[in-house]
Amino acid sequence: MSRQTSRLDAKKVNAELLTLTYGALVSQMLKETENTDDVNKHLERIGYNMGVRLIEDFLARTTSNRCLEMRETADKIQQAFRLYLNMQPTVTSWSSSGDEFSLVWDQCPLSEWVELPNNGLKYCALIPGAIRGALQMVQLEVQCWFVQDQLKGDAVTELRVKYIKRLEDAVPAGED
Amino acid sequence: MSRQTSRLDAKKVNAELLTLTYGALVSQMLKETENTDDVNKHLERIGYNMGVRLIEDFLARTTSNRCLEMRETADKIQQAFRLYLNMQPTVTSWSSSGDEFSLVWDQCPLSEWVELPNNGLKYCALIPGAIRGALQMVQLEVQCWFVQDQLKGDAVTELRVKYIKRLEDAVPAGED
Repeated sequence: MSRQTSRLDAKKVNAELLTLTYGALVSQMLKETENTDDVNKHLERIGYNMGVRLIEDFLARTTSNRCLEMRETADKIQQAFRLYLNMQPTVTSWSSSGDEFSLVWDQCPLSEWVELPNNGLKYCALIPGAIRGALQMVQLEVQCWFVQDQLKGDAVTELRVKYIKRLEDAVPAGED
Repeated sequence: MSRQTSRLDAKKVNAELLTLTYGALVSQMLKETENTDDVNKHLERIGYNMGVRLIEDFLARTTSNRCLEMRETADKIQQAFRLYLNMQPTVTSWSSSGDEFSLVWDQCPLSEWVELPNNGLKYCALIPGAIRGALQMVQLEVQCWFVQDQLKGDAVTELRVKYIKRLEDAVPAGED
């Protein structure tokens, strides 16, 4: 177990450096356009591309099997938060049909020290993007959106994740 | 000792997330302008601002005293690389007068997987900026520039640091 932990921790860097680098990215984008909707979409897209990339690393490091239902998926997402952001959101507020849940946190290294103008910016839009991108790569389509945001005065940040559908494995052209 | 290590490691996040976020920042800046000189300067300036901010954290965490000569400063910079980027550059190539040295490394989390077009971009310009900014805050003016860059085909990356002068502590207006 301790060997595994040290293997998982080998590639760690300082959280403040990430905080400041992400802050520089967001302010760079805001300099380019004042349309916060565009910035939100763009951050989500950057996150999506990161998720597409990080899922391989995640699968290699955790030797995960394919999740058969959303509760397993929620556990894996929680594990990914721990692994990549060193934070552990709570998984809560399951829908009765079990296809929708919330991730709730009150501290996130991406948004430490951040104060937002009241302009509709979804500062952490990278995160839902990354979840969507990573799950897409394991043939799972989800929707992912903020329902509460500490940066907008809510007590916690709450991200809702909703199962949409299983994607077919891509079949090479010419095959059934 | 183990208590100190765990205190230092408490704020760690995954290195790949930093790599990808920094990559997103650089490509965002390149989208805005094709003038790589401008991008280099801007990255250096962002690094400078990070250094100004991170030095406080560094001093608090390492309980460092003021360095009296450049060899101590070099040790502290090396320690900062370990603390923030989880890498340990070699300190080498001292000038005979002891006012100039090189930091040499062959792997850096900021530039992992990066391939550069041959366009003059100093991809890691954040780093000399951060060193300059951090040292400025402890009244030390240095120059800092790349003499070798792995991303440009050199065997290693070499960053030169040169002592310029001690800065006077700011004296409140009206006092001597």
